[in-house]
Amino acid sequence: MKTDIQIARESELRPISDIAEQLGIAPEKVEPYGRFMAKVPVSLIDEERVKKSRLILVTAISPTKVGIGKTTVSIGLAMGLNKIGKKASVSLREPSLGPCFGMKGGAAGGGYAQVLPMEKINLHFTGDFHAVTSAHNTISALLDNYLYQHRKDGFSLREIYWKRVLDVNDRALRNIVTGLRGDGVVSETGFDITPASELMAILCLATSEDDLRRRIENILLGITSDGKPFRVRDLGVGGAITVLMRDALSPNLVQTTEQTPAFIHGGPFANIAHGCSSVMATKMAMTFSDYVVTEAGFGADLGAEKFFNIKCRKAGLQPQLVVIVATTQGLKMHGGVALDHIKEPNADGLREGLKNLNRHINNMQGFGQPVIVTLNRFDSDTDEEIDIIRKNCEDRGVGFAVNEAFLKGGDGAVELAQKVVDTIERIQPLPINFTYPQSETIEGKIEKVCKRIYGAAAVEFTKTGKKRLEAIREIFADDKDISSYPICIAKTQYSFSADATRYGSPEGFTIRIRDVILNCGSEMIVAIAGDMLRMPGLPKSPQAERITIVNGEIEGLS
Amino acid sequence: MKTDIQIARESELRPISDIAEQLGIAPEKVEPYGRFMAKVPVSLIDEERVKKSRLILVTAISPTKVGIGKTTVSIGLAMGLNKIGKKASVSLREPSLGPCFGMKGGAAGGGYAQVLPMEKINLHFTGDFHAVTSAHNTISALLDNYLYQHRKDGFSLREIYWKRVLDVNDRALRNIVTGLRGDGVVSETGFDITPASELMAILCLATSEDDLRRRIENILLGITSDGKPFRVRDLGVGGAITVLMRDALSPNLVQTTEQTPAFIHGGPFANIAHGCSSVMATKMAMTFSDYVVTEAGFGADLGAEKFFNIKCRKAGLQPQLVVIVATTQGLKMHGGVALDHIKEPNADGLREGLKNLNRHINNMQGFGQPVIVTLNRFDSDTDEEIDIIRKNCEDRGVGFAVNEAFLKGGDGAVELAQKVVDTIERIQPLPINFTYPQSETIEGKIEKVCKRIYGAAAVEFTKTGKKRLEAIREIFADDKDISSYPICIAKTQYSFSADATRYGSPEGFTIRIRDVILNCGSEMIVAIAGDMLRMPGLPKSPQAERITIVNGEIEGLS
Repeated sequence: MKTDIQIARESELRPISDIAEQLGIAPEKVEPYGRFMAKVPVSLIDEERVKKSRLILVTAISPTKVGIGKTTVSIGLAMGLNKIGKKASVSLREPSLGPCFGMKGGAAGGGYAQVLPMEKINLHFTGDFHAVTSAHNTISALLDNYLYQHRKDGFSLREIYWKRVLDVNDRALRNIVTGLRGDGVVSETGFDITPASELMAILCLATSEDDLRRRIENILLGITSDGKPFRVRDLGVGGAITVLMRDALSPNLVQTTEQTPAFIHGGPFANIAHGCSSVMATKMAMTFSDYVVTEAGFGADLGAEKFFNIKCRKAGLQPQLVVIVATTQGLKMHGGVALDHIKEPNADGLREGLKNLNRHINNMQGFGQPVIVTLNRFDSDTDEEIDIIRKNCEDRGVGFAVNEAFLKGGDGAVELAQKVVDTIERIQPLPINFTYPQSETIEGKIEKVCKRIYGAAAVEFTKTGKKRLEAIREIFADDKDISSYPICIAKTQYSFSADATRYGSPEGFTIRIRDVILNCGSEMIVAIAGDMLRMPGLPKSPQAERITIVNGEIEGLS
Repeated sequence: MKTDIQIARESELRPISDIAEQLGIAPEKVEPYGRFMAKVPVSLIDEERVKKSRLILVTAISPTKVGIGKTTVSIGLAMGLNKIGKKASVSLREPSLGPCFGMKGGAAGGGYAQVLPMEKINLHFTGDFHAVTSAHNTISALLDNYLYQHRKDGFSLREIYWKRVLDVNDRALRNIVTGLRGDGVVSETGFDITPASELMAILCLATSEDDLRRRIENILLGITSDGKPFRVRDLGVGGAITVLMRDALSPNLVQTTEQTPAFIHGGPFANIAHGCSSVMATKMAMTFSDYVVTEAGFGADLGAEKFFNIKCRKAGLQPQLVVIVATTQGLKMHGGVALDHIKEPNADGLREGLKNLNRHINNMQGFGQPVIVTLNRFDSDTDEEIDIIRKNCEDRGVGFAVNEAFLKGGDGAVELAQKVVDTIERIQPLPINFTYPQSETIEGKIEKVCKRIYGAAAVEFTKTGKKRLEAIREIFADDKDISSYPICIAKTQYSFSADATRYGSPEGFTIRIRDVILNCGSEMIVAIAGDMLRMPGLPKSPQAERITIVNGEIEGLS
């Protein structure tokens, strides 16, 4: 089979104005970025049409060391829906340069189910991540400058919550000291990766330019020495930061290998942030398509939980159906099969691994959603293995379809697409059954997610976690808004528990919350479970060593 | 008079494809970034046509606290040349977000001589600065990771030259410690501002994609414990970094308030870097225009010196003429008039200030160039004052013209444009008389610039400066390339000396070199004079406080 990059190069791209026209958007309304990418102005979103469109969430079993191909399935499903005559598009997150040059390579699908131009999408794209980085660090500089310029007036912060961000995997920046040698005020601080920036979450949750501004103004930077919140608005620079983020708010339009429209916008990771593409992109796709496929990051315990409890709740979105992606290899790893044996048939291992899938199915049904399981088929999969998974799904009354979009493009996803359409036409989903009510306490919200979704036996707070929680309670006791914020738990993607080595379906574990961060701009409370880091590191042999230009073509990005 | 931003908004913009066509570039050859910006592929540069085009350098007297308006004059002159029937374009540097949100505001000209769309140009533009930032910090992360991953193999660097960069004014990042709490190797390091990145200089000096790659591979990151150079090529990531910088190499095409083509590309500052727009942009402009106006940063002691000794020497460019911009207010400040009196006529102060202008005239003539002085006229200027300056120039056989492009656009620069054309047609400039030969020693090169251009009485090296110089000499003793590198002195823009308070025409001073940095990618030796910082700070009331959106329009960027 051809490599991803060969397929990408051989795919015929249509001018982005044609893709816009195909959606019903007048070409002169979009801002071109090169010939094959465009930004679509947020003013084109039509809430009435959004209500009539059908939103499908693609999520997955817990990831393991072997890839699952959720993005490939999402792209394939959108192409499959077009194959059966539906007007469908896909709404995805933008890749981050950190993992792209670090461990993972690009994130634009694979095989015959890719979004294009994949080199541009995997690199600087339309500059959204750079805008977030720039805006975030401009706030940092303005805050440090304020502390420096006003130190003689007796102004200081007893707690500083705002750090800096870069879109790079750089472990050395996790913990740093700034302001040395008399330049500024000395601070113990650090850098997170850009997808963990609160501004990234804001970009993904804002519903208009005014809402973007409002959220930026509200960002909590720290607590003053007399116990008052100190926000971006207190720096007087909310307008300037909005100016830096303004263009980034418009969703990006590209196309798949089969010229299906794809809206790719925003990119919070699902383990350290809320893991969903932007509300603006989803609503734009829904304005101009009858079916919209969107994806939430990592396993359904992370991305999908946050998709419902944060994104859908805040944006008033009602999805119609959840597709859970599984692979035989992933299931076998969850069933205890060693990495070097997962390509061999192993019915027992597979059956054991289904416990991971079934917990995710239960969770998704718990939100009130019809569920379809799709197997992202690999060459080494046997019919017997596929039958085991199919049988498991039938026993639970859950739809099942094999997906071969990687190998066959949209044609390989027709079975899945047809099942999705049939199910949506047959079953009216229930209104979302959120995991916790907005009025619940912070601990209550955390506990409900940990117990109901992760299956934890107990939740504990470390000393710091407790201290932070008490500080929030004390300072913001009367703040009705804050008490309605959803929570966003940062947890490993590899396990239902907070221990990355516990694959499968662990039980009886305790989740330890070691930090609680109040995000008053994205309007959520971030709880850090276990030893999750918000700035990744690089492996001994980073992907950057394999990225290069050969005969004018970029290699190593797929 | 209308504000800059009002004029910018009222200016009619032509589609960028029309501007390309007007130059003779087929519209389908350019990459659009929105409707009014485009990248022009470097493959379109034609060296034969470059040789036939006439390059004009705009430089200035030493800046003071009052602005001089060099960019406005450069834009005005290009528009004036078009008014008198010449095919002219302008080649400028891209603004940096640091000063834009810090002290200075935008940098896209002013009044009726602006480049547009000014909000885009002043903000993220086509992402070139972000690409430099991203590529630079990716190298940093890969280097720190290499040190971390190989620390047990006994690998270490005894000197690390590579820091990090951000395009923001952030004094707290000047001196930092990274890698704390066991995450990575602890380092004393810091951030420079992006315009000081060696990659920015590389972007501006590279002559092709292959040359970009070659320069990136050569970047010297540090010295190993056994005294060997350690370069990007030793990390094995030259290809990956080139991939990040590839799109940035193509010059950006925009237009002036009178639809004159403007190539805006690259943005090193002239005080802490080499201060010239890219070679690619200048050559692209020269390929498609008969006259090209370009600008070098700050006063002629900084930008113009580096323009000749670095940019023109390395790119083989032969300029035809130098325009030196002066203002009555700037000259009066150089003549010792206090800031709150500079709008009042003061013939004696003005005459005294002419000493600053005349030293710059001598320096530019020393390069073998015909010189024209232009007065950037302000409302408060009197005829008597203008006559004093005119007389001064006539006495020296130097052309003089009043420039009113700020108030009148191209019409206000017709006198200057005509004089420029007449002079170019009349006088054949001498081949550039470089300040030092390539074969000179590093100290010799530094001394020649300090004495011949700055007028210093002596040059001293601090202990660190000496140590660095000796290290370079020892490790690279046999490197013929390095011994041919030009030098790039980082020095305050406000004075011929390294003391920012010494306006006018100081004499008898000593320049102290406190650091010497070997840039093997940009192929220059950076010498830091006095207390120059490569990361600016913010003032008590930064410009960011005045940047905002009112009724959908951005305010505060001009």
